Amino acid sequence: MNRRQITGFSNPTVKALRALREKKHRKAAGRFLAEGLRLLTDARENGHLPELLVLSDARDPHPLLGALERDVIASGGEVIETTPDILAKITGKSNPQAVAGVFREFDTSLAALNRDAANIWLVAQALRDPGNLGTMLRTGDAIGAGGLILIDDCADPFSVEAVRASMGAIFTQGVAQARWEEFEPWLREPRGGASPQLVAASLREAVPYRAAPYAAPCFVMVGNESQGLPQAYEAACDLRVTMPMRGRADSLNAAVAAAVLGYEVLACLEDDRSKRGSTVG
Amino acid sequence: MNRRQITGFSNPTVKALRALREKKHRKAAGRFLAEGLRLLTDARENGHLPELLVLSDARDPHPLLGALERDVIASGGEVIETTPDILAKITGKSNPQAVAGVFREFDTSLAALNRDAANIWLVAQALRDPGNLGTMLRTGDAIGAGGLILIDDCADPFSVEAVRASMGAIFTQGVAQARWEEFEPWLREPRGGASPQLVAASLREAVPYRAAPYAAPCFVMVGNESQGLPQAYEAACDLRVTMPMRGRADSLNAAVAAAVLGYEVLACLEDDRSKRGSTVG
Repeated sequence: MNRRQITGFSNPTVKALRALREKKHRKAAGRFLAEGLRLLTDARENGHLPELLVLSDARDPHPLLGALERDVIASGGEVIETTPDILAKITGKSNPQAVAGVFREFDTSLAALNRDAANIWLVAQALRDPGNLGTMLRTGDAIGAGGLILIDDCADPFSVEAVRASMGAIFTQGVAQARWEEFEPWLREPRGGASPQLVAASLREAVPYRAAPYAAPCFVMVGNESQGLPQAYEAACDLRVTMPMRGRADSLNAAVAAAVLGYEVLACLEDDRSKRGSTVG
Repeated sequence: MNRRQITGFSNPTVKALRALREKKHRKAAGRFLAEGLRLLTDARENGHLPELLVLSDARDPHPLLGALERDVIASGGEVIETTPDILAKITGKSNPQAVAGVFREFDTSLAALNRDAANIWLVAQALRDPGNLGTMLRTGDAIGAGGLILIDDCADPFSVEAVRASMGAIFTQGVAQARWEEFEPWLREPRGGASPQLVAASLREAVPYRAAPYAAPCFVMVGNESQGLPQAYEAACDLRVTMPMRGRADSLNAAVAAAVLGYEVLACLEDDRSKRGSTVG
Protein backbone atom coordinates (compact mmCIF):
# COMPACT_ATOMS: atom_id res chain seq x y z
CA MET A 1 0.00 0.00 0.00
CA ASN A 2 1.90 3.07 -1.13
CA ARG A 3 -0.91 5.64 -1.16
CA ARG A 4 -3.17 6.52 1.72
CA GLN A 5 -5.25 9.23 3.33
CA ILE A 6 -4.73 10.63 6.83
CA THR A 7 -7.42 12.75 8.45
CA GLY A 8 -6.65 12.45 12.17
CA PHE A 9 -4.26 14.70 14.08
CA SER A 10 -3.40 11.85 16.44
CA ASN A 11 -2.36 9.49 13.64
CA PRO A 12 1.05 7.99 14.52
CA THR A 13 2.49 8.93 11.11
CA VAL A 14 1.57 12.57 11.75
CA LYS A 15 3.31 12.38 15.12
CA ALA A 16 6.41 10.77 13.61
CA LEU A 17 6.60 13.41 10.86
CA ARG A 18 6.12 16.23 13.29
CA ALA A 19 8.87 14.82 15.47
CA LEU A 20 11.32 15.32 12.56
CA ARG A 21 11.34 19.01 13.49
CA GLU A 22 13.43 18.02 16.51
CA LYS A 23 17.08 17.12 16.06
CA LYS A 24 17.10 14.04 18.29
CA HIS A 25 14.21 12.51 16.37
CA ARG A 26 15.84 13.36 13.03
CA LYS A 27 19.04 11.68 14.10
CA ALA A 28 17.20 8.62 15.46
CA ALA A 29 15.22 8.30 12.22
CA GLY A 30 18.06 9.36 9.88
CA ARG A 31 15.38 11.34 8.02
CA PHE A 32 14.55 15.00 7.45
CA LEU A 33 11.68 17.07 6.14
CA ALA A 34 11.60 19.47 3.19
CA GLU A 35 8.59 21.48 2.04
CA GLY A 36 7.35 23.06 -1.13
CA LEU A 37 7.04 22.04 -4.75
CA ARG A 38 10.01 24.10 -5.86
CA LEU A 39 12.34 22.61 -3.30
CA LEU A 40 11.11 19.06 -3.90
CA THR A 41 11.50 19.54 -7.65
CA ASP A 42 15.09 20.74 -7.14
CA ALA A 43 15.64 17.63 -5.06
CA ARG A 44 14.14 15.36 -7.73
CA GLU A 45 16.20 16.94 -10.51
CA ASN A 46 19.31 16.32 -8.41
CA GLY A 47 18.51 12.68 -7.86
CA HIS A 48 16.96 12.96 -4.39
CA LEU A 49 13.48 11.48 -4.16
CA PRO A 50 11.56 11.58 -0.88
CA GLU A 51 10.72 8.23 0.66
CA LEU A 52 7.43 9.71 1.74
CA LEU A 53 5.47 12.48 0.02
CA VAL A 54 2.76 14.32 1.96
CA LEU A 55 0.21 16.16 -0.15
CA SER A 56 -2.48 18.61 0.90
CA ASP A 57 -5.93 17.50 -0.26
CA ALA A 58 -6.57 21.19 -1.02
CA ARG A 59 -3.70 21.39 -3.54
CA ASP A 60 -4.05 22.70 -7.05
CA PRO A 61 -2.97 20.27 -9.76
CA HIS A 62 0.50 20.96 -11.18
CA PRO A 63 2.47 18.96 -13.75
CA LEU A 64 5.62 19.02 -11.56
CA LEU A 65 3.61 17.72 -8.63
CA GLY A 66 2.23 14.92 -10.80
CA ALA A 67 5.75 14.04 -11.95
CA LEU A 68 6.97 13.98 -8.35
CA GLU A 69 4.12 11.72 -7.26
CA ARG A 70 4.76 9.29 -10.10
CA ASP A 71 8.48 9.13 -9.39
CA VAL A 72 7.98 8.57 -5.67
CA ILE A 73 5.54 5.73 -6.30
CA ALA A 74 7.76 4.23 -9.01
CA SER A 75 10.76 4.21 -6.65
CA GLY A 76 8.79 2.34 -3.99
CA GLY A 77 8.02 5.39 -1.85
CA GLU A 78 4.76 6.25 -0.20
CA VAL A 79 2.28 9.08 -0.87
CA ILE A 80 0.01 10.42 1.86
CA GLU A 81 -2.86 12.83 1.36
CA THR A 82 -3.96 14.94 4.27
CA THR A 83 -5.67 18.18 5.24
CA PRO A 84 -3.95 21.60 5.16
CA ASP A 85 -4.38 21.74 8.97
CA ILE A 86 -2.47 18.54 9.50
CA LEU A 87 0.20 19.62 7.01
CA ALA A 88 0.52 22.87 9.00
CA LYS A 89 0.96 20.83 12.16
CA ILE A 90 3.68 18.70 10.54
CA THR A 91 5.70 21.57 9.08
CA GLY A 92 5.05 24.05 11.88
CA LYS A 93 3.99 26.74 9.40
CA SER A 94 0.60 28.39 9.63
CA ASN A 95 0.35 28.67 5.83
CA PRO A 96 1.93 25.39 4.78
CA GLN A 97 2.97 24.62 1.25
CA ALA A 98 0.83 22.03 -0.52
CA VAL A 99 3.54 19.37 -0.37
CA ALA A 100 6.26 18.10 1.92
CA GLY A 101 8.67 15.21 1.64
CA VAL A 102 10.66 13.01 3.97
CA PHE A 103 14.23 12.37 2.81
CA ARG A 104 16.97 10.12 4.04
CA GLU A 105 19.84 12.18 5.53
CA PHE A 106 22.95 12.21 3.33
CA ASP A 107 26.44 11.01 4.12
CA THR A 108 28.13 14.11 5.57
CA SER A 109 31.62 12.72 6.02
CA LEU A 110 34.50 14.65 4.47
CA ALA A 111 35.35 11.52 2.52
CA ALA A 112 32.14 11.99 0.53
CA LEU A 113 33.41 15.32 -0.88
CA ASN A 114 35.69 15.57 -3.87
CA ARG A 115 38.01 18.46 -2.99
CA ASP A 116 38.94 19.07 -6.62
CA ALA A 117 35.38 19.16 -7.93
CA ALA A 118 35.04 22.93 -7.47
CA ASN A 119 37.16 26.08 -7.28
CA ILE A 120 35.35 27.49 -4.27
CA TRP A 121 34.14 25.91 -1.03
CA LEU A 122 32.48 27.49 1.96
CA VAL A 123 33.53 26.54 5.49
CA ALA A 124 31.68 27.48 8.68
CA GLN A 125 32.98 26.97 12.18
CA ALA A 126 30.57 26.56 15.12
CA LEU A 127 27.79 28.26 13.17
CA ARG A 128 24.77 28.19 15.46
CA ASP A 129 21.97 29.72 13.44
CA PRO A 130 20.27 27.28 11.05
CA GLY A 131 19.03 30.21 8.97
CA ASN A 132 22.63 31.37 8.45
CA LEU A 133 23.60 27.82 7.56
CA GLY A 134 20.83 27.52 4.96
CA THR A 135 21.67 30.95 3.56
CA MET A 136 25.31 29.86 3.14
CA LEU A 137 24.18 26.80 1.19
CA ARG A 138 22.05 29.04 -1.03
CA THR A 139 24.98 31.41 -1.60
CA GLY A 140 27.25 28.45 -2.29
CA ASP A 141 24.90 27.31 -5.04
CA ALA A 142 24.90 30.83 -6.53
CA ILE A 143 28.70 31.14 -6.66
CA GLY A 144 29.16 27.60 -7.96
CA ALA A 145 30.79 26.35 -4.77
CA GLY A 146 31.35 22.65 -4.26
CA GLY A 147 29.63 22.70 -0.91
CA LEU A 148 29.64 23.71 2.71
CA ILE A 149 31.93 22.19 5.33
CA LEU A 150 30.69 22.52 8.90
CA ILE A 151 33.50 22.52 11.44
CA ASP A 152 33.02 21.71 15.12
CA ASP A 153 29.54 22.08 16.65
CA CYS A 154 27.30 23.71 14.08
CA ALA A 155 23.54 23.89 13.65
CA ASP A 156 22.02 20.85 11.95
CA PRO A 157 21.99 21.23 8.13
CA PHE A 158 18.89 19.01 8.04
CA SER A 159 16.82 21.18 10.36
CA VAL A 160 13.61 22.57 8.89
CA GLU A 161 14.96 26.13 9.16
CA ALA A 162 18.25 25.33 7.41
CA VAL A 163 16.56 23.37 4.63
CA ARG A 164 14.03 26.20 4.15
CA ALA A 165 16.69 28.95 4.08
CA SER A 166 18.78 26.89 1.61
CA MET A 167 15.95 27.24 -0.94
CA GLY A 168 16.82 23.80 -2.30
CA ALA A 169 20.60 24.12 -2.15
CA ILE A 170 20.71 21.39 0.51
CA PHE A 171 20.12 19.08 -2.47
CA THR A 172 22.62 20.69 -4.84
CA GLN A 173 25.55 21.56 -2.57
CA GLY A 174 27.85 19.07 -0.90
CA VAL A 175 27.60 19.14 2.90
CA ALA A 176 30.17 17.75 5.32
CA GLN A 177 30.44 17.84 9.11
CA ALA A 178 33.85 17.42 10.75
CA ARG A 179 36.00 18.41 13.69
CA TRP A 180 38.85 20.82 12.94
CA GLU A 181 41.28 17.97 13.72
CA GLU A 182 39.84 15.98 10.80
CA PHE A 183 39.32 18.91 8.47
CA GLU A 184 42.87 20.22 8.48
CA PRO A 185 44.58 16.95 7.42
CA TRP A 186 41.87 16.38 4.78
CA LEU A 187 42.50 19.87 3.43
CA ARG A 188 46.28 19.60 3.46
CA GLU A 189 46.66 16.09 2.09
CA PRO A 190 48.55 16.32 -1.24
CA ARG A 191 46.52 14.90 -4.13
CA GLY A 192 48.34 15.93 -7.25
CA GLY A 193 46.28 19.05 -8.05
CA ALA A 194 46.80 22.60 -6.78
CA SER A 195 47.17 23.02 -3.01
CA PRO A 196 43.96 24.24 -1.43
CA GLN A 197 43.96 27.77 -0.06
CA LEU A 198 42.21 28.41 3.26
CA VAL A 199 40.96 31.99 3.57
CA ALA A 200 39.32 33.79 6.46
CA ALA A 201 38.16 37.30 7.21
CA SER A 202 40.31 38.54 10.04
CA LEU A 203 41.39 41.67 11.84
CA ARG A 204 44.90 40.32 12.45
CA GLU A 205 47.75 40.55 9.90
CA ALA A 206 45.25 40.71 7.09
CA VAL A 207 45.36 42.10 3.55
CA PRO A 208 42.41 43.98 2.00
CA TYR A 209 39.84 41.46 0.75
CA ARG A 210 39.41 43.29 -2.57
CA ALA A 211 41.43 41.56 -5.31
CA ALA A 212 43.48 39.64 -2.74
CA PRO A 213 45.63 36.80 -4.15
CA TYR A 214 42.91 34.13 -4.07
CA ALA A 215 43.76 30.77 -5.59
CA ALA A 216 41.65 27.75 -6.49
CA PRO A 217 40.56 25.56 -4.82
CA CYS A 218 39.74 28.34 -2.37
CA PHE A 219 38.11 27.50 0.98
CA VAL A 220 36.34 30.55 2.43
CA MET A 221 35.90 30.15 6.19
CA VAL A 222 33.71 32.08 8.60
CA GLY A 223 33.43 31.64 12.35
CA ASN A 224 30.82 31.48 15.05
CA GLU A 225 28.23 34.29 15.15
CA SER A 226 29.37 35.74 18.45
CA GLN A 227 32.94 34.47 18.94
CA GLY A 228 34.31 34.54 15.41
CA LEU A 229 37.06 32.06 14.54
CA PRO A 230 39.44 30.65 17.17
CA GLN A 231 42.82 32.32 16.83
CA ALA A 232 44.54 29.01 16.04
CA TYR A 233 42.20 28.44 13.08
CA GLU A 234 42.92 31.93 11.76
CA ALA A 235 46.62 31.27 12.13
CA ALA A 236 46.24 28.08 10.06
CA CYS A 237 44.82 30.06 7.13
CA ASP A 238 46.89 30.65 4.00
CA LEU A 239 45.36 34.08 3.56
CA ARG A 240 43.71 36.44 6.02
CA VAL A 241 41.68 39.23 4.50
CA THR A 242 39.97 42.23 6.00
CA MET A 243 36.76 43.87 4.85
CA PRO A 244 36.05 47.58 5.21
CA MET A 245 34.14 48.40 8.39
CA ARG A 246 33.08 52.01 8.07
CA GLY A 247 30.71 52.10 11.01
CA ARG A 248 30.74 51.22 14.68
CA ALA A 249 30.64 47.46 14.25
CA ASP A 250 33.71 45.31 13.65
CA SER A 251 31.93 42.33 12.14
CA LEU A 252 29.24 41.23 9.70
CA ASN A 253 26.56 38.61 9.93
CA ALA A 254 28.35 35.29 9.23
CA ALA A 255 26.31 34.41 6.13
CA VAL A 256 26.80 37.94 4.80
CA ALA A 257 30.58 37.79 5.33
CA ALA A 258 30.72 34.43 3.54
CA ALA A 259 28.74 35.84 0.61
CA VAL A 260 30.74 39.05 0.19
CA LEU A 261 34.00 37.08 0.34
CA GLY A 262 32.65 34.25 -1.81
CA TYR A 263 31.58 36.63 -4.58
CA GLU A 264 34.94 38.40 -4.40
CA VAL A 265 36.79 35.08 -4.77
CA LEU A 266 34.56 34.12 -7.70
CA ALA A 267 35.22 37.43 -9.48
CA CYS A 268 39.00 37.22 -8.90
CA LEU A 269 39.32 33.59 -10.01
CA GLU A 270 37.32 34.27 -13.19
CA ASP A 271 39.32 37.41 -13.85
CA ASP A 272 42.55 35.40 -13.54
CA ARG A 273 41.21 32.77 -15.88
CA SER A 274 40.20 35.30 -18.53
CA LYS A 275 43.62 37.00 -18.28
CA ARG A 276 45.42 33.70 -18.64
CA GLY A 277 43.04 32.87 -21.49
CA SER A 278 43.87 36.08 -23.35
CA THR A 279 47.61 35.60 -22.85
CA VAL A 280 47.49 32.10 -24.22
CA GLY A 281 44.94 32.88 -26.97
CA MET B 1 10.59 56.77 42.34
CA ASN B 2 13.03 55.90 39.57
CA ARG B 3 14.46 52.64 40.91
CA ARG B 4 12.49 49.62 41.99
CA GLN B 5 12.50 45.85 42.32
CA ILE B 6 10.07 43.48 40.60
CA THR B 7 9.82 39.87 41.70
CA GLY B 8 6.38 38.81 40.49
CA PHE B 9 5.64 37.39 37.04
CA SER B 10 2.16 38.90 37.12
CA ASN B 11 3.42 42.43 37.79
CA PRO B 12 1.71 44.79 35.32
CA THR B 13 5.06 46.29 34.25
CA VAL B 14 6.30 42.81 33.30
CA LYS B 15 3.17 42.27 31.25
CA ALA B 16 3.52 45.64 29.53
CA LEU B 17 7.18 44.97 28.70
CA ARG B 18 6.43 41.52 27.42
CA ALA B 19 3.67 42.93 25.23
CA LEU B 20 6.31 45.01 23.39
CA ARG B 21 7.24 41.82 21.55
CA GLU B 22 4.00 42.24 19.60
CA LYS B 23 3.73 44.86 16.90
CA LYS B 24 0.32 46.21 17.84
CA HIS B 25 1.45 46.83 21.41
CA ARG B 26 4.68 48.46 20.22
CA LYS B 27 2.74 50.79 17.98
CA ALA B 28 0.20 51.60 20.71
CA ALA B 29 3.01 52.34 23.17
CA GLY B 30 5.38 53.94 20.64
CA ARG B 31 8.13 52.00 22.43
CA PHE B 32 10.43 49.09 21.64
CA LEU B 33 12.75 46.74 23.46
CA ALA B 34 16.49 46.18 22.99
CA GLU B 35 18.64 43.74 24.94
CA GLY B 36 22.25 43.37 25.90
CA LEU B 37 24.96 45.61 27.28
CA ARG B 38 26.74 45.97 23.97
CA LEU B 39 23.62 47.07 22.14
CA LEU B 40 22.54 49.43 24.90
CA THR B 41 26.03 50.93 25.02
CA ASP B 42 25.93 51.50 21.25
CA ALA B 43 22.58 53.19 21.78
CA ARG B 44 23.92 55.38 24.58
CA GLU B 45 26.99 56.41 22.59
CA ASN B 46 24.67 57.41 19.75
CA GLY B 47 22.51 59.56 21.97
CA HIS B 48 19.69 57.06 22.58
CA LEU B 49 18.98 56.42 26.25
CA PRO B 50 16.29 53.97 27.29
CA GLU B 51 13.37 55.41 29.23
CA LEU B 52 13.35 52.24 31.27
CA LEU B 53 16.29 49.98 32.07
CA VAL B 54 15.64 46.42 33.26
CA LEU B 55 18.53 44.74 35.08
CA SER B 56 18.96 41.15 36.14
CA ASP B 57 19.64 40.86 39.87
CA ALA B 58 22.12 38.11 38.94
CA ARG B 59 24.23 40.45 36.78
CA ASP B 60 27.96 40.88 37.14
CA PRO B 61 29.09 44.44 37.78
CA HIS B 62 30.46 46.21 34.68
CA PRO B 63 31.63 49.80 34.31
CA LEU B 64 29.55 50.28 31.13
CA LEU B 65 26.48 49.01 32.93
CA GLY B 66 27.13 51.44 35.78
CA ALA B 67 27.49 54.30 33.28
CA LEU B 68 24.25 53.30 31.59
CA GLU B 69 22.38 53.18 34.91
CA ARG B 70 23.67 56.60 35.94
CA ASP B 71 22.74 58.18 32.60
CA VAL B 72 19.24 56.69 32.64
CA ILE B 73 18.57 57.97 36.16
CA ALA B 74 20.10 61.37 35.35
CA SER B 75 17.84 61.75 32.31
CA GLY B 76 14.75 61.04 34.39
CA GLY B 77 14.38 57.39 33.32
CA GLU B 78 13.55 54.45 35.51
CA VAL B 79 15.65 51.43 36.55
CA ILE B 80 14.04 48.11 37.47
CA GLU B 81 15.79 45.12 38.98
CA THR B 82 14.31 41.72 38.48
CA THR B 83 15.14 38.01 38.35
CA PRO B 84 16.74 36.28 35.32
CA ASP B 85 13.50 34.26 34.95
CA ILE B 86 11.38 37.37 34.60
CA LEU B 87 13.92 38.92 32.23
CA ALA B 88 13.71 35.73 30.15
CA LYS B 89 9.94 36.08 30.08
CA ILE B 90 10.18 39.71 28.95
CA THR B 91 12.70 39.15 26.17
CA GLY B 92 11.47 35.71 25.11
CA LYS B 93 14.98 34.27 25.32
CA SER B 94 15.78 31.32 27.52
CA ASN B 95 19.26 32.68 28.30
CA PRO B 96 18.52 36.37 28.55
CA GLN B 97 21.17 39.03 28.61
CA ALA B 98 21.62 40.77 31.96
CA VAL B 99 20.06 44.00 30.75
CA ALA B 100 17.27 45.25 28.51
CA GLY B 101 15.99 48.72 27.75
CA VAL B 102 12.77 50.29 26.57
CA PHE B 103 13.27 52.99 23.93
CA ARG B 104 10.94 55.45 22.30
CA GLU B 105 10.44 54.60 18.60
CA PHE B 106 12.21 57.04 16.25
CA ASP B 107 10.71 59.25 13.59
CA THR B 108 10.82 57.07 10.46
CA SER B 109 9.54 59.60 7.94
CA LEU B 110 11.65 60.21 4.83
CA ALA B 111 11.81 63.87 5.84
CA ALA B 112 13.98 62.86 8.81
CA LEU B 113 16.73 61.57 6.46
CA ASN B 114 19.35 63.80 4.89
CA ARG B 115 19.80 62.33 1.41
CA ASP B 116 23.22 63.94 0.99
CA ALA B 117 24.64 62.74 4.30
CA ALA B 118 26.04 59.51 2.83
CA ASN B 119 27.27 58.06 -0.47
CA ILE B 120 25.39 54.77 -0.05
CA TRP B 121 21.88 53.97 1.10
CA LEU B 122 20.10 50.65 1.31
CA VAL B 123 16.50 50.29 0.19
CA ALA B 124 14.27 47.27 0.79
CA GLN B 125 10.87 46.73 -0.74
CA ALA B 126 8.24 44.58 1.01
CA LEU B 127 10.93 42.82 3.04
CA ARG B 128 9.07 40.42 5.32
CA ASP B 129 11.75 38.81 7.45
CA PRO B 130 12.77 40.92 10.48
CA GLY B 131 16.09 39.03 10.61
CA ASN B 132 16.87 40.11 7.04
CA LEU B 133 15.90 43.65 7.95
CA GLY B 134 18.19 43.72 10.99
CA THR B 135 21.01 42.15 8.96
CA MET B 136 20.64 44.90 6.34
CA LEU B 137 20.95 47.54 9.05
CA ARG B 138 24.10 45.81 10.32
CA THR B 139 25.56 45.67 6.80
CA GLY B 140 24.61 49.32 6.26
CA ASP B 141 26.61 50.28 9.32
CA ALA B 142 29.60 48.28 8.02
CA ILE B 143 29.63 49.92 4.58
CA GLY B 144 29.05 53.39 5.98
CA ALA B 145 25.56 53.69 4.53
CA GLY B 146 23.32 56.54 5.60
CA GLY B 147 20.51 54.20 6.47
CA LEU B 148 17.81 51.81 5.35
CA ILE B 149 14.66 52.90 3.57
CA LEU B 150 11.77 50.46 3.85
CA ILE B 151 9.37 50.66 0.92
CA ASP B 152 5.77 49.42 1.03
CA ASP B 153 4.81 46.80 3.65
CA CYS B 154 8.00 45.63 5.35
CA ALA B 155 8.68 43.89 8.64
CA ASP B 156 8.81 46.22 11.64
CA PRO B 157 12.34 47.61 12.19
CA PHE B 158 11.55 47.86 15.92
CA SER B 159 10.67 44.18 16.35
CA VAL B 160 12.82 42.26 18.81
CA GLU B 161 14.21 40.09 15.98
CA ALA B 162 15.16 43.05 13.77
CA VAL B 163 16.76 44.95 16.64
CA ARG B 164 18.69 41.83 17.68
CA ALA B 165 19.91 41.05 14.14
CA SER B 166 20.96 44.69 13.67
CA MET B 167 23.53 44.23 16.46
CA GLY B 168 23.03 47.85 17.47
CA ALA B 169 22.83 49.34 13.99
CA ILE B 170 19.18 50.28 14.65
CA PHE B 171 20.73 53.08 16.74
CA THR B 172 23.43 54.12 14.25
CA GLN B 173 21.66 53.85 10.87
CA GLY B 174 18.86 56.09 9.68
CA VAL B 175 15.59 54.21 9.15
CA ALA B 176 12.65 55.42 7.09
CA GLN B 177 9.36 53.80 6.11
CA ALA B 178 7.52 55.01 3.01
CA ARG B 179 5.28 53.99 0.15
CA TRP B 180 6.94 53.86 -3.27
CA GLU B 181 4.73 56.83 -4.28
CA GLU B 182 6.42 58.94 -1.58
CA PHE B 183 9.90 57.53 -2.03
CA GLU B 184 10.32 58.22 -5.74
CA PRO B 185 9.55 61.98 -5.56
CA TRP B 186 11.76 62.29 -2.45
CA LEU B 187 14.59 60.56 -4.31
CA ARG B 188 14.19 62.56 -7.52
CA GLU B 189 13.68 66.01 -6.03
CA PRO B 190 16.61 68.23 -7.18
CA ARG B 191 18.59 69.61 -4.24
CA GLY B 192 21.69 71.09 -5.73
CA GLY B 193 24.01 68.10 -5.18
CA ALA B 194 24.57 65.09 -7.43
CA SER B 195 21.45 63.27 -8.64
CA PRO B 196 20.83 60.10 -6.67
CA GLN B 197 21.32 56.82 -8.49
CA LEU B 198 18.81 54.03 -7.85
CA VAL B 199 20.33 50.57 -8.41
CA ALA B 200 18.75 47.14 -8.30
CA ALA B 201 19.84 43.60 -8.99
CA SER B 202 17.81 42.41 -11.93
CA LEU B 203 17.68 39.78 -14.61
CA ARG B 204 16.28 42.21 -17.19
CA GLU B 205 18.46 44.54 -19.31
CA ALA B 206 21.15 44.46 -16.68
CA VAL B 207 24.92 45.02 -16.76
CA PRO B 208 27.35 42.88 -14.74
CA TYR B 209 27.40 44.10 -11.13
CA ARG B 210 31.21 44.00 -10.98
CA ALA B 211 32.66 47.49 -11.47
CA ALA B 212 29.37 48.79 -12.88
CA PRO B 213 29.11 52.59 -13.24
CA TYR B 214 27.93 53.27 -9.69
CA ALA B 215 27.62 56.91 -8.65
CA ALA B 216 27.08 58.60 -5.29
CA PRO B 217 24.65 58.98 -3.67
CA CYS B 218 23.87 55.39 -4.63
CA PHE B 219 20.62 53.76 -3.43
CA VAL B 220 20.92 49.96 -3.51
CA MET B 221 17.47 48.39 -3.63
CA VAL B 222 16.41 44.78 -3.02
CA GLY B 223 12.92 43.34 -3.25
CA ASN B 224 10.64 41.00 -1.38
CA GLU B 225 12.04 37.60 -0.39
CA SER B 226 9.79 35.57 -2.65
CA GLN B 227 8.51 38.02 -5.28
CA GLY B 228 11.56 40.19 -5.88
CA LEU B 229 10.97 43.77 -7.01
CA PRO B 230 7.86 44.81 -8.95
CA GLN B 231 8.76 45.31 -12.60
CA ALA B 232 7.75 48.99 -12.47
CA TYR B 233 10.23 49.62 -9.64
CA GLU B 234 13.01 47.91 -11.57
CA ALA B 235 12.14 50.02 -14.60
CA ALA B 236 12.46 53.16 -12.47
CA CYS B 237 16.06 52.31 -11.58
CA ASP B 238 18.96 54.24 -13.09
CA LEU B 239 21.08 51.11 -13.18
CA ARG B 240 20.15 47.43 -13.25
CA VAL B 241 22.93 45.01 -12.43
CA THR B 242 23.16 41.26 -12.55
CA MET B 243 25.14 39.00 -10.27
CA PRO B 244 26.65 35.68 -11.35
CA MET B 245 24.36 32.74 -10.64
CA ARG B 246 26.43 29.63 -11.25
CA GLY B 247 24.03 27.12 -9.75
CA ARG B 248 20.38 26.20 -10.05
CA ALA B 249 18.99 29.20 -8.20
CA ASP B 250 18.29 32.55 -9.84
CA SER B 251 18.31 34.63 -6.68
CA LEU B 252 20.09 35.25 -3.39
CA ASN B 253 18.79 35.85 0.10
CA ALA B 254 17.71 39.53 0.14
CA ALA B 255 20.12 40.58 2.88
CA VAL B 256 22.96 38.75 1.12
CA ALA B 257 22.19 40.43 -2.22
CA ALA B 258 22.15 43.84 -0.52
CA ALA B 259 25.50 43.13 1.13
CA VAL B 260 27.30 41.85 -1.98
CA LEU B 261 26.02 44.82 -3.98
CA GLY B 262 26.63 47.27 -1.14
CA TYR B 263 30.27 46.20 -0.78
CA GLU B 264 30.75 46.39 -4.53
CA VAL B 265 29.38 49.94 -4.60
CA LEU B 266 31.62 50.91 -1.68
CA ALA B 267 34.71 49.52 -3.42
CA CYS B 268 33.89 51.21 -6.74
CA LEU B 269 33.11 54.61 -5.21
CA GLU B 270 36.33 54.56 -3.18
CA ASP B 271 38.28 53.42 -6.21
CA ASP B 272 36.85 56.35 -8.20
CA ARG B 273 37.75 58.76 -5.44
CA SER B 274 41.34 57.53 -5.21
CA LYS B 275 41.72 57.73 -9.01
CA ARG B 276 40.38 61.26 -9.07
CA GLY B 277 42.65 62.04 -6.14
CA SER B 278 45.73 60.77 -7.96
CA THR B 279 44.84 62.69 -11.14
CA VAL B 280 44.48 65.93 -9.28
CA GLY B 281 47.44 65.38 -6.95
